[in-house]
Amino acid sequence: MRFDEAYSGNVFIRSHANYEESQAVIYGMPMDWTVSFRPGSRFGPARIREVSIGLEEYSPYLDRLLEEVKYFDAGDIPLPFGNVEGSIDAIRSFVSQVLADGKMPIGLGGEHLVTWPVIQAVYEKYKDLVIFHFDAHTDLRDSYEGYPYSHSTPIKKACNLIGGKNVYSFGIRSGMKEEFEWAKENMHLYKYDVLEPVKQVLPTIGNRPIYLTIDIDVLDPSAAPGTGTTEAGGITSRELLDTIHFMAQNGANVIGCDLVEVAPVYDSSEMTQIVASKMVRELILGFVK
Amino acid sequence: MRFDEAYSGNVFIRSHANYEESQAVIYGMPMDWTVSFRPGSRFGPARIREVSIGLEEYSPYLDRLLEEVKYFDAGDIPLPFGNVEGSIDAIRSFVSQVLADGKMPIGLGGEHLVTWPVIQAVYEKYKDLVIFHFDAHTDLRDSYEGYPYSHSTPIKKACNLIGGKNVYSFGIRSGMKEEFEWAKENMHLYKYDVLEPVKQVLPTIGNRPIYLTIDIDVLDPSAAPGTGTTEAGGITSRELLDTIHFMAQNGANVIGCDLVEVAPVYDSSEMTQIVASKMVRELILGFVK
Amino acid sequence: MRFDEAYSGNVFIRSHANYEESQAVIYGMPMDWTVSFRPGSRFGPARIREVSIGLEEYSPYLDRLLEEVKYFDAGDIPLPFGNVEGSIDAIRSFVSQVLADGKMPIGLGGEHLVTWPVIQAVYEKYKDLVIFHFDAHTDLRDSYEGYPYSHSTPIKKACNLIGGKNVYSFGIRSGMKEEFEWAKENMHLYKYDVLEPVKQVLPTIGNRPIYLTIDIDVLDPSAAPGTGTTEAGGITSRELLDTIHFMAQNGANVIGCDLVEVAPVYDSSEMTQIVASKMVRELILGFVK
Amino acid sequence: MRFDEAYSGNVFIRSHANYEESQAVIYGMPMDWTVSFRPGSRFGPARIREVSIGLEEYSPYLDRLLEEVKYFDAGDIPLPFGNVEGSIDAIRSFVSQVLADGKMPIGLGGEHLVTWPVIQAVYEKYKDLVIFHFDAHTDLRDSYEGYPYSHSTPIKKACNLIGGKNVYSFGIRSGMKEEFEWAKENMHLYKYDVLEPVKQVLPTIGNRPIYLTIDIDVLDPSAAPGTGTTEAGGITSRELLDTIHFMAQNGANVIGCDLVEVAPVYDSSEMTQIVASKMVRELILGFVK
Amino acid sequence: MRFDEAYSGNVFIRSHANYEESQAVIYGMPMDWTVSFRPGSRFGPARIREVSIGLEEYSPYLDRLLEEVKYFDAGDIPLPFGNVEGSIDAIRSFVSQVLADGKMPIGLGGEHLVTWPVIQAVYEKYKDLVIFHFDAHTDLRDSYEGYPYSHSTPIKKACNLIGGKNVYSFGIRSGMKEEFEWAKENMHLYKYDVLEPVKQVLPTIGNRPIYLTIDIDVLDPSAAPGTGTTEAGGITSRELLDTIHFMAQNGANVIGCDLVEVAPVYDSSEMTQIVASKMVRELILGFVK
Amino acid sequence: MRFDEAYSGNVFIRSHANYEESQAVIYGMPMDWTVSFRPGSRFGPARIREVSIGLEEYSPYLDRLLEEVKYFDAGDIPLPFGNVEGSIDAIRSFVSQVLADGKMPIGLGGEHLVTWPVIQAVYEKYKDLVIFHFDAHTDLRDSYEGYPYSHSTPIKKACNLIGGKNVYSFGIRSGMKEEFEWAKENMHLYKYDVLEPVKQVLPTIGNRPIYLTIDIDVLDPSAAPGTGTTEAGGITSRELLDTIHFMAQNGANVIGCDLVEVAPVYDSSEMTQIVASKMVRELILGFVK
Repeated sequence: MRFDEAYSGNVFIRSHANYEESQAVIYGMPMDWTVSFRPGSRFGPARIREVSIGLEEYSPYLDRLLEEVKYFDAGDIPLPFGNVEGSIDAIRSFVSQVLADGKMPIGLGGEHLVTWPVIQAVYEKYKDLVIFHFDAHTDLRDSYEGYPYSHSTPIKKACNLIGGKNVYSFGIRSGMKEEFEWAKENMHLYKYDVLEPVKQVLPTIGNRPIYLTIDIDVLDPSAAPGTGTTEAGGITSRELLDTIHFMAQNGANVIGCDLVEVAPVYDSSEMTQIVASKMVRELILGFVK
Repeated sequence: MRFDEAYSGNVFIRSHANYEESQAVIYGMPMDWTVSFRPGSRFGPARIREVSIGLEEYSPYLDRLLEEVKYFDAGDIPLPFGNVEGSIDAIRSFVSQVLADGKMPIGLGGEHLVTWPVIQAVYEKYKDLVIFHFDAHTDLRDSYEGYPYSHSTPIKKACNLIGGKNVYSFGIRSGMKEEFEWAKENMHLYKYDVLEPVKQVLPTIGNRPIYLTIDIDVLDPSAAPGTGTTEAGGITSRELLDTIHFMAQNGANVIGCDLVEVAPVYDSSEMTQIVASKMVRELILGFVK
Repeated sequence: MRFDEAYSGNVFIRSHANYEESQAVIYGMPMDWTVSFRPGSRFGPARIREVSIGLEEYSPYLDRLLEEVKYFDAGDIPLPFGNVEGSIDAIRSFVSQVLADGKMPIGLGGEHLVTWPVIQAVYEKYKDLVIFHFDAHTDLRDSYEGYPYSHSTPIKKACNLIGGKNVYSFGIRSGMKEEFEWAKENMHLYKYDVLEPVKQVLPTIGNRPIYLTIDIDVLDPSAAPGTGTTEAGGITSRELLDTIHFMAQNGANVIGCDLVEVAPVYDSSEMTQIVASKMVRELILGFVK
Repeated sequence: MRFDEAYSGNVFIRSHANYEESQAVIYGMPMDWTVSFRPGSRFGPARIREVSIGLEEYSPYLDRLLEEVKYFDAGDIPLPFGNVEGSIDAIRSFVSQVLADGKMPIGLGGEHLVTWPVIQAVYEKYKDLVIFHFDAHTDLRDSYEGYPYSHSTPIKKACNLIGGKNVYSFGIRSGMKEEFEWAKENMHLYKYDVLEPVKQVLPTIGNRPIYLTIDIDVLDPSAAPGTGTTEAGGITSRELLDTIHFMAQNGANVIGCDLVEVAPVYDSSEMTQIVASKMVRELILGFVK
Repeated sequence: MRFDEAYSGNVFIRSHANYEESQAVIYGMPMDWTVSFRPGSRFGPARIREVSIGLEEYSPYLDRLLEEVKYFDAGDIPLPFGNVEGSIDAIRSFVSQVLADGKMPIGLGGEHLVTWPVIQAVYEKYKDLVIFHFDAHTDLRDSYEGYPYSHSTPIKKACNLIGGKNVYSFGIRSGMKEEFEWAKENMHLYKYDVLEPVKQVLPTIGNRPIYLTIDIDVLDPSAAPGTGTTEAGGITSRELLDTIHFMAQNGANVIGCDLVEVAPVYDSSEMTQIVASKMVRELILGFVK
Repeated sequence: MRFDEAYSGNVFIRSHANYEESQAVIYGMPMDWTVSFRPGSRFGPARIREVSIGLEEYSPYLDRLLEEVKYFDAGDIPLPFGNVEGSIDAIRSFVSQVLADGKMPIGLGGEHLVTWPVIQAVYEKYKDLVIFHFDAHTDLRDSYEGYPYSHSTPIKKACNLIGGKNVYSFGIRSGMKEEFEWAKENMHLYKYDVLEPVKQVLPTIGNRPIYLTIDIDVLDPSAAPGTGTTEAGGITSRELLDTIHFMAQNGANVIGCDLVEVAPVYDSSEMTQIVASKMVRELILGFVK
């Protein structure tokens, strides 16, 4: 009988019961109010957790078990609907606390703009930060139709903050001409592929701290239909798995990560959240020390 | 303003080719960024238009043809994603121009907050305005989680602007206790039903100008599953048709109207936009002189 | 003709194994090539059969069991895709044979145009024929965009053949103005309702043979979303059941019937074919002697 | 910050944090392995909870707030997949403990067979028990294809246990002929309607304890498409609400209840779990003292 | 002809406002009445346009912007439902005019039979025509169940018209034995792959005019589920993109093209129309001079 | 046994009319009651048959026609819902008879546990049996939550029966750590890939009889979303086709096979059953002598 214990409802499988003892913290950022096309990623975090019950706790790729790691699922950060600045503040404040407590942040989105306050918090702690960005889109706009906050802008804001030479984008296949031209001069951008360029870049990074942000639409629409803006010509889920495993097995010092833009309503098969939950398991097993 | 240029989106069936000659203007308000539950109503206007091709141009209820009326479909008002105040300003400005040109505004939403700037514009012109509000929800909050703009607030804002004694809500079956108590003291609120209370109220209005705002969720979920926040126990589409026809045939002086909260992604059968497009036809035939 | 060979498709529950011994014949007319809006009713017959497995064999309404009746499910009539005249000929020929063999035809559609050749065959045998037509749409066009064959035309063709005074339409809520005006002069058309007008009409028919054709869209979209052209303001499935039972219990001499326009792809819940299969059971139990 | 408290993920809205202090206990019974047609109700409890976030905490029907009641959501009872007897034992044991602790059980299904062990536990405590059963189906089989456990059997088992004269079924419109005949002799069965017969029966019950079991398919398919075996001709969600409210406002002594057979996968609109979650709110507000 | 009037449907992103000034014309051919399996491609053109709003105007593959090209979206050609010959005539007539006006035709389907009248019109102008055909299916039937018009026949008709030695099919993985045998003797057919054989064939074509017809089902079902007849074992969207880019960058003289068989109703994720709209952008940027 | 009576359900395309004359027998095993995550595979066999109508009868891969082979589709084996042991007995008994009659068994699932009784029957006849197992999951559990029957156990049971050294698993990417460790010591397990390891293993088998069991989830979720437990990182449908063809063209002595775990409700595009039906065609053409 479970009456004497708190019920731990919708959390990522094998979440540890205690925040203090945990090495990492999973949290949802259920925001989708600045997206330019199809909304719905606010429900991404809840559904990624829901289907995690279907995961095995063991990764045959990394030969490691979830029970070897202590992570705490803190649920979704409460965000004020439609209030962009209030939401950004709430996320930055939450992640700053996680970092201050010495824990690795693992975020679930939500639209990609949620990564911007996370990077602000992470950079506060890690001044030699490197960003790895897996995405179909450049996300390098300064603003969208005159408004400075949009899911098309977080990587540009990150470049402005930490310096474009510390930012690496992979798998990119869509953006404005100006974004691609700016990237060529100011940062590292690899088109179409992820695994091969990561293999080239990683040895040059050494032990510097990496924040890894994955937009699920880096995958081909066939592998991740449940996202706001799918873009044909993407990578397979196997290439993404192989990349995470390559990084984990070659000493990448990932000190925080997120997986964003899962919008379950566009995928009646639930395939997108299922692939996302597997990626989260591999991120935990690969990068939480 | 785009009135002088060709609109390049799809249009409601039998839309007149010319703005100047038209008696009424249809426009979309594709905003859904403050919704508290399921987003997606930004695509409501486009899909209502899309399925209008399946409508007959004749109403056997009103014995009138669409070609007897001149209305211009101006397309969707361009709104900045995630920017609430910018969106509200754009809507108010657009509708003010329509009214200044002596045309009847017929709006398609979009979340219910879009009705707020419309009412501001309409009240500017019609000082003895009466509002008829068909909805499952009170929409009488002052704010939502501390933020003054939310799809739960437009009717409260309207009461504050034009006086609660001029606002009539029908079909209401969900809200906070405080909202129902406030309504009892300050405005006219009819629970559950629409047709019978409208029959009682209409004769007391005389020839005063009525703005009619219909939230599609006044219908039972069975008749309109494609909306963000369905609420069991609603009216049938036949009761809504009967109400519109009663008003049209009993001299209701409707000087503007909207139909909001159609969120197509939750209705793979397309039933919701199809019922909405029929209601729009009846609104045109019933109220455009 | 395939009557002498075993049919190797799925069949309606409790179909009798033998054509010769059967009192009635079920057959599909999987044609949807002239529809003006959303196609897909070609799969209606197969899916109505598929879900019939979920039916009980007993009707508590009529207190009768399927095993008390002998009916043979002949499968779908093979129709040449896109060839309208060839399809019409195939249907007429099939039904003529069924009638010649002294069996009651029970057809599953398919678009409503399939009813036209059936009526031709039935009228050949029953010269004092009456047609009962349950539908949202008048179906009284002479042609559609200049082409004489369309799912908008079968009832007009029927009126021309057997005389409009022998044709009764019920539940109608959509059509062109010209159609409604023609109907007023030339046939019997009851708007919106089905049960009450049937109660009025049936006693005037006496024992004359009735062919009953049911377009599933006579139901409200909430009860039958899976059809090409849904039309808000329809009747409930309970009203349709009550009507069938009233007819069965008041001596209606139904000598043939069909149920058409089920298009399963628009209804991911399968509700439409499930309600249709129940109606077919009640038609069998109510009208096969 | 919420770090010092346990995260209370997927629970019914406003669930109390503490079992001991609660008056009622909500629990899921995620079993669907004996269903004869479409499985999937194992996910019903989780999805009913998920959408409860969209509910208001206030009922305008009963003028009562959820915070006026203390109920604890204990999550889903762990059940062994495919092991019918093990599952039944687990449910009976859980509910017996809830009752021994003086709390009202509120169960979420799952297939209807889950009600059988609940009734066993309830009858152990309440020897003058009356059962109210809202359903489309008789559920009066002794066995299904020779196997004694099936979702078609729980009411028969209940009749055998507590005496058929203490069992009242409402809204029934499907079953075998033998079941209807058995019911006529041995229990109380009301066909098609729910509200009117409940109004007749309730005064005859006095203050006897009532266990109320609601199969969501008592609703018409239009109002609850997400269930394994939909049956046309059912009641509206408004009639079900009115019945619950009539019982609550006329002294029905409901000492336990359940709502079963929600199978979310057949309803991409989520309407079924949304209506179910509203019914659960009304059950709590109506019957938890 | 409608060239002189404003088109009132939705248009492909960045469509030029003026027919006369345009170098290319986009048009829909919303016909699906001869398909042998699942209909629905009549809505392909409208939905490809609808989602084009989500496209960037820049191709990082071709380093070119849509605004560098002038194309006019003429909307859908009005076709008589179910009237095959009338539809074929309407298409041929429309395309002949486009060609006479010196503009490149870019067609959206619709079933593959629509390509037949286009080829007739194109061949009228380009007597040394070569056809490139990307498809899962041979489409080499003479007739289908005795009827000469079917979506299984257009390539055979093309071979008969322009000579099989001028027709190249790529990616083929389904057909009758007789079709494959006929192809081996009479035309060029490459099984399974597209990119590699195109690389071999293109240099042999020189500057001869190529008409490129793409059936979306050349893609694997995983990349394009929304089509009538999916066929496992197809190419990825990346291979299709690479092929278009190879042709564009190696001097292929494409003087017209189409993309057909998008049937949106089978793809609730909208992935198929999204990938199709990206292909259309690349066709415009790759081949319109 | 039903062999002496006509089967009256839908059948796989080109099924032979006569059991006695057939070389192979297709049968469904519509069981899904022990699955641990999402049920629904009970409808897999019926839907695989349904879409087989869309298949060509010719394989361009194997250059063989279905009419060159005689196979009888016996329909679904009647199984008692929720009764695991009764179902297993029914399957074993059915397959034993098929084998006794000298025919090759070709099974359609249903959950993977159905393979266990088949293997028992097959091993009874072929004592030097080899099992080829294509799957995402190890299926090597001894029990699931204490219960010996589960869709996670059939391969372990098979290893215990025929000896793990005779069992080869391919494509495996999920399981418990204990399962992978057990496999390393006791059987042959190839991770992630199928084609390459099959190329290595097949020559070592010689002419020994092979039973081939394919869980559709060996495919990547993108190619087969309609299954209970999808697992990212799988093979393409082309790799599975290539593997079947390699085996067929290199003398694999396949004496029985099955394809299981197709759960149509999770795939509104029907892609999964369509790919499955093509695989069944290739299995027939590749392995029935």
